[in-house]
Amino acid sequence: MRLRKIKGAAEFIASHPGIVIGDPKSLKGKWSTAFEKDQPLSIEVGMGKGQFIIGMARLHPEQNFIGIEKFDSVLIRAIEKILESEPLPNLKLLMVDAENLKDIFEAGEVAHVYLNFSDPWPKPRHAKRRLTHEAFLGIYKTIMDPSGTLAFKTDNRLLFEYSLKSITDFGMGLKDVAFDLHARVGLEWNIKTEYEEKFSALGQPIYRLEALWKEGKPNERN
Amino acid sequence: MRLRKIKGAAEFIASHPGIVIGDPKSLKGKWSTAFEKDQPLSIEVGMGKGQFIIGMARLHPEQNFIGIEKFDSVLIRAIEKILESEPLPNLKLLMVDAENLKDIFEAGEVAHVYLNFSDPWPKPRHAKRRLTHEAFLGIYKTIMDPSGTLAFKTDNRLLFEYSLKSITDFGMGLKDVAFDLHARVGLEWNIKTEYEEKFSALGQPIYRLEALWKEGKPNERN
Repeated sequence: MRLRKIKGAAEFIASHPGIVIGDPKSLKGKWSTAFEKDQPLSIEVGMGKGQFIIGMARLHPEQNFIGIEKFDSVLIRAIEKILESEPLPNLKLLMVDAENLKDIFEAGEVAHVYLNFSDPWPKPRHAKRRLTHEAFLGIYKTIMDPSGTLAFKTDNRLLFEYSLKSITDFGMGLKDVAFDLHARVGLEWNIKTEYEEKFSALGQPIYRLEALWKEGKPNERN
Repeated sequence: MRLRKIKGAAEFIASHPGIVIGDPKSLKGKWSTAFEKDQPLSIEVGMGKGQFIIGMARLHPEQNFIGIEKFDSVLIRAIEKILESEPLPNLKLLMVDAENLKDIFEAGEVAHVYLNFSDPWPKPRHAKRRLTHEAFLGIYKTIMDPSGTLAFKTDNRLLFEYSLKSITDFGMGLKDVAFDLHARVGLEWNIKTEYEEKFSALGQPIYRLEALWKEGKPNERN
């Protein structure tokens, strides 16, 4: 995604405290209090412009959602989309780095984690920055309910190959694997990201996996 | 693969005892005696017309190979290819069903197992016939050296998705995953099957995985 320095971004973000939580660490362990309803919480790490998490929040009023993005230039696009849509009391946004998720969520506080079209960081020396690197998997494992699902979509073949290996090496089980998601029928549940709409329209296959923690043992490797 | 009833196939096969082992059960636990050299033994299950296993035997004189095929109409094509080529003292063929491999190989007797373009058996009720079904994985686990590799290639996306899940569910670790094998460079090690040549020439991606037994524990599930 092209990132531009946006003048006034910080002020714009700060002026929407009902959408973007300004002090997320203060809610660690009590995220249910940030929403109207106490219901399962799922997060998207690296939500970009927000189309996916907004669509999920609309499709699943019985769940709470948090979209997480570290770049303000992208986050403000998500805020704008939320302002344009019907109110979504089950959706909040955070501007934080995925490395800090353990400071923000209590162990087991998150049901499902979604990763969509994450930066592939193709150079081997940057592998640690990939959101499916074992360092990040360890963070998700800590904050996730052991019965939760990690769902990952990408159009990047090499990142998907890497992620399959990284995720299964880490001891997760594959629940579902799709090498051409849009070739499947009955995809009403699949909320497309902005990228996904563009790339699948070009005939590019979309790869997707769902992974589970085996035997529901939380934090055994952390 | 189109299968035809070939007249005289049994006689043709029986007339080449130096290539096709007629009584494989008698060699269980002492396969090294069937070859000129006592060296690691790898097998291809469902070798078809034999191009892969013949190529492997030629490329790796430091290993012994056995090509296994249950249909005589295909096996005779492999015999013909071997007769046309330079002698390969490190290659034998067997006409047996994969279900019976435990009667033919001693526990740990096989180093590596190769599966290439196996029948996808697309109907769910036929899943048990897929050569990556857990029932077959259990057989491979019994006969394989725990440090050995299971290598699987296919052009069938759905079979590959199924196999990734089946293999990792069974407790194997993924060593390598390729969603478009021929997009890689430096593939001198990759012996193409007849199918693979045809399908990759048509631009069809070839999927491939290598899986390992974790922690080298043999037969823990058998």
